[in-house]
Amino acid sequence: MLKTALIGCGRIGRMHAEIVNASSRTHLTLVHDVHGPSAASVAEASGARVAETAEAVFDDPDVDAVIVASVTSTHADYIEAAVRAGKPVLCEKPIDLDIRRVLACRDAIAGTDVPIQIGFNRRFDPGHTAVRDELASGDIGRLLQLLITSRDPAPPGDDYLRGAGGMIRDMTIHDFDLARYLLGDDEPVEVWACAQALIDPDLKQMDEVDCAMIVMRTGEGRQVLINNARQSPYGYDQRIEAMATGGMLQSTNRTPHGIARFTASGTDAGAPYLDFFIERYREAFVHQLNAFVDTVEKGTPASPSFEDGLKALRLAEAAYQSLETGKATRVET
Amino acid sequence: MLKTALIGCGRIGRMHAEIVNASSRTHLTLVHDVHGPSAASVAEASGARVAETAEAVFDDPDVDAVIVASVTSTHADYIEAAVRAGKPVLCEKPIDLDIRRVLACRDAIAGTDVPIQIGFNRRFDPGHTAVRDELASGDIGRLLQLLITSRDPAPPGDDYLRGAGGMIRDMTIHDFDLARYLLGDDEPVEVWACAQALIDPDLKQMDEVDCAMIVMRTGEGRQVLINNARQSPYGYDQRIEAMATGGMLQSTNRTPHGIARFTASGTDAGAPYLDFFIERYREAFVHQLNAFVDTVEKGTPASPSFEDGLKALRLAEAAYQSLETGKATRVET
Amino acid sequence: MLKTALIGCGRIGRMHAEIVNASSRTHLTLVHDVHGPSAASVAEASGARVAETAEAVFDDPDVDAVIVASVTSTHADYIEAAVRAGKPVLCEKPIDLDIRRVLACRDAIAGTDVPIQIGFNRRFDPGHTAVRDELASGDIGRLLQLLITSRDPAPPGDDYLRGAGGMIRDMTIHDFDLARYLLGDDEPVEVWACAQALIDPDLKQMDEVDCAMIVMRTGEGRQVLINNARQSPYGYDQRIEAMATGGMLQSTNRTPHGIARFTASGTDAGAPYLDFFIERYREAFVHQLNAFVDTVEKGTPASPSFEDGLKALRLAEAAYQSLETGKATRVET
Amino acid sequence: MLKTALIGCGRIGRMHAEIVNASSRTHLTLVHDVHGPSAASVAEASGARVAETAEAVFDDPDVDAVIVASVTSTHADYIEAAVRAGKPVLCEKPIDLDIRRVLACRDAIAGTDVPIQIGFNRRFDPGHTAVRDELASGDIGRLLQLLITSRDPAPPGDDYLRGAGGMIRDMTIHDFDLARYLLGDDEPVEVWACAQALIDPDLKQMDEVDCAMIVMRTGEGRQVLINNARQSPYGYDQRIEAMATGGMLQSTNRTPHGIARFTASGTDAGAPYLDFFIERYREAFVHQLNAFVDTVEKGTPASPSFEDGLKALRLAEAAYQSLETGKATRVET
Repeated sequence: MLKTALIGCGRIGRMHAEIVNASSRTHLTLVHDVHGPSAASVAEASGARVAETAEAVFDDPDVDAVIVASVTSTHADYIEAAVRAGKPVLCEKPIDLDIRRVLACRDAIAGTDVPIQIGFNRRFDPGHTAVRDELASGDIGRLLQLLITSRDPAPPGDDYLRGAGGMIRDMTIHDFDLARYLLGDDEPVEVWACAQALIDPDLKQMDEVDCAMIVMRTGEGRQVLINNARQSPYGYDQRIEAMATGGMLQSTNRTPHGIARFTASGTDAGAPYLDFFIERYREAFVHQLNAFVDTVEKGTPASPSFEDGLKALRLAEAAYQSLETGKATRVET
Repeated sequence: MLKTALIGCGRIGRMHAEIVNASSRTHLTLVHDVHGPSAASVAEASGARVAETAEAVFDDPDVDAVIVASVTSTHADYIEAAVRAGKPVLCEKPIDLDIRRVLACRDAIAGTDVPIQIGFNRRFDPGHTAVRDELASGDIGRLLQLLITSRDPAPPGDDYLRGAGGMIRDMTIHDFDLARYLLGDDEPVEVWACAQALIDPDLKQMDEVDCAMIVMRTGEGRQVLINNARQSPYGYDQRIEAMATGGMLQSTNRTPHGIARFTASGTDAGAPYLDFFIERYREAFVHQLNAFVDTVEKGTPASPSFEDGLKALRLAEAAYQSLETGKATRVET
Repeated sequence: MLKTALIGCGRIGRMHAEIVNASSRTHLTLVHDVHGPSAASVAEASGARVAETAEAVFDDPDVDAVIVASVTSTHADYIEAAVRAGKPVLCEKPIDLDIRRVLACRDAIAGTDVPIQIGFNRRFDPGHTAVRDELASGDIGRLLQLLITSRDPAPPGDDYLRGAGGMIRDMTIHDFDLARYLLGDDEPVEVWACAQALIDPDLKQMDEVDCAMIVMRTGEGRQVLINNARQSPYGYDQRIEAMATGGMLQSTNRTPHGIARFTASGTDAGAPYLDFFIERYREAFVHQLNAFVDTVEKGTPASPSFEDGLKALRLAEAAYQSLETGKATRVET
Repeated sequence: MLKTALIGCGRIGRMHAEIVNASSRTHLTLVHDVHGPSAASVAEASGARVAETAEAVFDDPDVDAVIVASVTSTHADYIEAAVRAGKPVLCEKPIDLDIRRVLACRDAIAGTDVPIQIGFNRRFDPGHTAVRDELASGDIGRLLQLLITSRDPAPPGDDYLRGAGGMIRDMTIHDFDLARYLLGDDEPVEVWACAQALIDPDLKQMDEVDCAMIVMRTGEGRQVLINNARQSPYGYDQRIEAMATGGMLQSTNRTPHGIARFTASGTDAGAPYLDFFIERYREAFVHQLNAFVDTVEKGTPASPSFEDGLKALRLAEAAYQSLETGKATRVET
């Protein structure tokens, strides 16, 4: 059992705690949160100890690995601390909102072999993984076009938005990584973005958007669309469509149960989709943890890696630059 | 162009008139209805002449073939008249409500080679036909179980019901024929029926039912369910499920257009199904007419035949007998 | 944490062990199996102790409740032992293959308030439960017809079949219980059955069947179909269709992930269904355990109860009698 | 009956001839094609006369209206001729490949009240129309994002491509018009295009593309994606997705019949989609003709109009300009 510590006991931290404890491979030993009562509450529910500081977590000899689910601005610091302490880390995305901080972090940890896995959970969704595997197998031919739909159930509050770094760095970054995961070696080289505050026009005042269509061209010319909206009345909408020379694959949404209704107002109607990522991607979070444990215990490469985290951010940067210029923007490498 | 006459200008007769005139292979020349204005109205819309009597239709030298869409009690008489006149006939189902009249008719026309086709239109539905063809091809293995769902959108009025001979002779008869069509040579040999007036309990007073489940066993032991209801709030429900050793085939319902709605009250909801047989089975009626023209012009065997009409009625008789005895009833042959 | 013991460490027992240990409400303390190594293996994986005898389980003061997953012939004995020991029991279905043994057991435990829950897991499937709740709410009107499809992925081996008591007692019994669950207070009063060995005709030699259609009529006249097959090439097929005066509800199958394939050989094709009950009904087994814990800890009535187990068996008996007589058979009460 | 003439007797001309003759409102009287045998063949099948020249068609006093289905380079000439002759015209798209010719034509016909309808058939598809009506009703809230998928079953031959004016003028132009139809008064003002020869890289030699993603922004900021491919192994793929504040609407593909297959290789698989526009949009072509007859007989405004034809072409021009510059391009008005 991997003795696992958790830094950050908010909503997503609590979910990690639960998953760590439900697994037969991991065990939650130590938790920390800047807000003491949050840490105490998770500790009580899970039988873990509380660390007063993040440093205490990294110093603790009884900790094999650390999950970082604290606010974004702390991620790079904690990654550096984990590397110094020699403790494998599974860190929530993004590494940082400022790409300069990410690059500095990269310099600081250069040459390390301490495993660093970034929390792009969608790579571990069974449906998305199956699309990736089918594409990689070649059975469906050569990939031509990729369309990723990602629509949140409801907009976050203004407080969240103010710290999130913009929709494209906060939300689309998952889709950038998912696109890269599905594309394999053929990286996006050019990004064009269209984004507006259409759902809530007041967002313009904080220079924020809530709907986006982003097109990327890969090195081999493939076309990728990312379609985002911050509000979806029918539930969290997470779909992939991969058009290939031999056919098309879709990874579709899932309903909480298999009920279909047939009435005078419609036929074969499913339930609204699972509400949000904690429900929709539960299996993905479990598989993500398993991959992390494999990395720690069996030495499989950490994936998605720190470099993946950086590359997703570079795509977000290119998208923001395109928004300003109206031009397709080359991705920095 | 086959010079075609029509006897019976009610709802289904008018539909036949339209289909005959829209076809490049047929032309409506003569119409008759006991209710003069109905005949006149169809004649005017289609450019056909009006015959004062049914006899005049069969005597007319300018008529190549006759479609009979008059009330059931006239069907056997008109089939006999058509045979005497040597005119091919496409006659709506059923041949008669009384099996003795059907048998007498069979005697009367014994030895004829005048084509007689019974209007079991569902055999010509593209989906149902495709199921039959797949089963016949053997690609899906040996058929084990067959489930036919047939639910009308809304119950007919009491007037209709009083003349209809009971739901099983009037409505289920289509499903008996469809089952036989799908089963090929393996005929149902035993019938068990369960039927009640569940939607409108007042029907019990006229000894009528509105919901039925009828199970048949074939000579080779296959199992067939027919599931009927006289009311379906989500539209006319017409489905086939064929379970075989290699997989399952369904012929599913069709919506008027391909709209899917995703809202807080449901996802991927289609429109209610097409309202009733004239809409749902329009293609089937067109293919049915083509098969009739092929029979007349090319000498292909009339199908479904008079014998098919008789056999469907024998299944209905067995079902009614089972309702009385509570026992599985052998089908007469 | 409910200190839970397990008797029977075969396939389904191992699944119970896993679910008990994954729950934050239960803890596996003691296991027993007549085959020692099976018990040892489960004990090792779960940290439980091994009991040499079943008696030792019931005598153990450190056991709060017992799950019985041993062979059917032991169920009634263990239920009686649990009652004598005052330990709540969750017992796999059926109570016994011989209804006389079930009735003797009922006499033996008469008057007890020790909770006895029978393992009809399907009642706890989220989709099936949602159908039940919608029906109970009345939103979809009055239920008219119920169709339950239950097809196993592949036939069991001959050894299993010889001890299983016949398909209708072994497999259909789940559907009998599910029907009763969905029907609420309106119990089936009459059963008619059609069953043959169609998939593997050799089964006739052991007087066994592999395909069945069973129709039941309820006290209020509702119609129920149960449709079974022992082989389904496309995966475990578990569906409900509830036709009501206001519309239709279906509880449909689930695929392992949301992939849809579109190729020249077909469009919108999902993956084959989850293989069998352990995968398909995993959530149901978890909810079943929670209901059991609620009964033990909060005193909610045990459900499905011993009486439910008896009633399902009476429906199976009526079905077998109908098979012999060809007649609809009254259900004993 | 509207006495209708047809200029152009190729594949799409023959389809128009059939539809004109199947309608009870129209009658084909006169046909012309530069290739005499094509005209003769349509004339024979439909009972129409043959005109030796296009001029003879416009001069014929026995012609009420003209359908133009000849090669694109003749469209503007024939529109001008129709206006001079005072004969209503239904002209296939596009008006011309060269926008200067379209503008000259506009000048030439300025002030006319002779009805000119452009053959953007997709506006008349029942599913697409239903989406438009639902959006217009406001029941689904405010439209935010529109995604149009349009993939041909197989690439056309090189000969066709050389005369087609480029995929975006030839194929995407339908989608530009469809987008405008669905958007109502909120016109696209900015276009950004990504297009490559991905399916057949040899197309680069003739400066042609076969895959495209085109994003448009409307005056009110709405986002529109058009997704094209010249090859779709699973059949002609024609879909709309409209994301709105109250939910999402899709207009989905249709299969030739309602068969679903369930086997070890997939579940609920439909047939491949209808092959191409003549099959997929048959109903649309019929409704299109009815709209044209309404315009001629009842004076309803011609729609889609000459201006609609021009505006779709302006969007194509903007897309081509964007391809060259990599920038979002303002649409000329």
